[in-house]
Amino acid sequence: MKISIIGLGLIGASLATCLKASNAEVTLIGYDQSEQATISALAKGTIDQAATTAEEAIADADMVILAVFVEAIKHILAEIGPMLKPGTIVLDVGSTKAQIVEAMNLLPDTVQAVGGHPMTGRLTQGVDTASANLFQGRIFALCPTRHTTVDTKNIITGFVESLGAQPLWLDAYKHDEYVAMVSHLSRLLPIAVITAADQKDDLIWKLAAGSFRETTRLASEPLGFWRDVFATNPAGIATTLRDVAAQLEHFAQLVEANDIDSIADHSQQAEQIWQRLYGASQRGEKNA
Amino acid sequence: MKISIIGLGLIGASLATCLKASNAEVTLIGYDQSEQATISALAKGTIDQAATTAEEAIADADMVILAVFVEAIKHILAEIGPMLKPGTIVLDVGSTKAQIVEAMNLLPDTVQAVGGHPMTGRLTQGVDTASANLFQGRIFALCPTRHTTVDTKNIITGFVESLGAQPLWLDAYKHDEYVAMVSHLSRLLPIAVITAADQKDDLIWKLAAGSFRETTRLASEPLGFWRDVFATNPAGIATTLRDVAAQLEHFAQLVEANDIDSIADHSQQAEQIWQRLYGASQRGEKNA
Repeated sequence: MKISIIGLGLIGASLATCLKASNAEVTLIGYDQSEQATISALAKGTIDQAATTAEEAIADADMVILAVFVEAIKHILAEIGPMLKPGTIVLDVGSTKAQIVEAMNLLPDTVQAVGGHPMTGRLTQGVDTASANLFQGRIFALCPTRHTTVDTKNIITGFVESLGAQPLWLDAYKHDEYVAMVSHLSRLLPIAVITAADQKDDLIWKLAAGSFRETTRLASEPLGFWRDVFATNPAGIATTLRDVAAQLEHFAQLVEANDIDSIADHSQQAEQIWQRLYGASQRGEKNA
Repeated sequence: MKISIIGLGLIGASLATCLKASNAEVTLIGYDQSEQATISALAKGTIDQAATTAEEAIADADMVILAVFVEAIKHILAEIGPMLKPGTIVLDVGSTKAQIVEAMNLLPDTVQAVGGHPMTGRLTQGVDTASANLFQGRIFALCPTRHTTVDTKNIITGFVESLGAQPLWLDAYKHDEYVAMVSHLSRLLPIAVITAADQKDDLIWKLAAGSFRETTRLASEPLGFWRDVFATNPAGIATTLRDVAAQLEHFAQLVEANDIDSIADHSQQAEQIWQRLYGASQRGEKNA
């Protein structure tokens, strides 16, 4: 079985490492837009064959895995679609899913396609940090497309399980809305809070508390790959931001009505959810 | 000089310790509603005399320091106001200031009063953790009242400086609005985020990311003393929540317009502010 991996960053290279470790029968063809990354992956034995273009990489593949940014996945899908041999299964591992599934829906009827998102909890890039156990025990979200038969679903479920991950099939729009809330929001909220505080006069910074440091810490670095996430999940992010804004308005009305009991009820409920997710009995680290 | 301290928790006991260390001339009369706390403070020499009621504590005081919760400070001010001897200066150290300054404005014209808020970065309670250097280098917000002459302002400024703290005079309403943004928000936001996420179906928790853990961590504990803060700063908190909600709506519109450049501009500005406040060249810990 020939598997092509487009993109040899952290996820792509880890997938390759994991596939080599678990299945000797597979031939891995790798391609990265960085020639250096491709050559390095070949030299390390992470891949079996190096391709010099995406077209070359996918030419004879039974399965194609797209492990690049979401915007790039959309372009590659449009580019390689007509060249895929009948029966090929395409899987991507991008962070947002709706736009990718829409692009996959435009592929020829002769190919199969599934949107994927491994929740690895790791954001660093590069083949050097690739790890065969990156997916171990992690949720691997999977989104069906117009080209996902029951057979394909079974094959991809098995594939994900062979990585040690937990397949979680869900609708792409739901994925994007939910992931916006539990992941993308974390990066936007600190920016919004500092921007709101910055509307006041500079005296406010003298009062900035230790808790403010924690609340805003994720704003301490450049956006990096989040640009791609924000650009490709407008609906999920907008819904989430408005959901949270509505809660803030609700809380504003509660404090104005001096209804601290209701705030305390919300707090108690939130505390229980937090403890269930992350408390002492849970593993310390979760998906990202 | 006789100084009465009502409330011998972390702040009250630390003030006493600090005053004893810096000024041998002062006689400290202490009172805590917990008889045990009062007895313990006397036994340790934290205070010179123990009172059994607030009235007894303030009877002959030149200065009265109120170091209890904001709701309690309001009640005590109404109670002791008529009993204060002429010329007494009242200072409080509560976390919110508008309602306290309003209560201080109702004191007799024969007494002086200032609202205070030491930003100590410590939230634990109790005389056992009292520390003479709790205020060292910290901002000590001070809010004038209707009973704050220039002389009183100078005396309190000197008093705060003698604790090693940095006096910062500002309007009580501005204090509450700003502190809501840089402190109280940190406790409310995680509750609002979890509450918003909890509106979705339970599948969302399977996708909860490591960043969600960080974003919501402050929701992991009971509200405790925050109830008092929320109950006594309705205007500041409501303004802050609406300011942040407006930013979230602004960001929602930007992602919908695919204007990621503007998001990145906000991010860059936020990053610069964060680095200025908390970056490598700053001390790691700030006020709370």
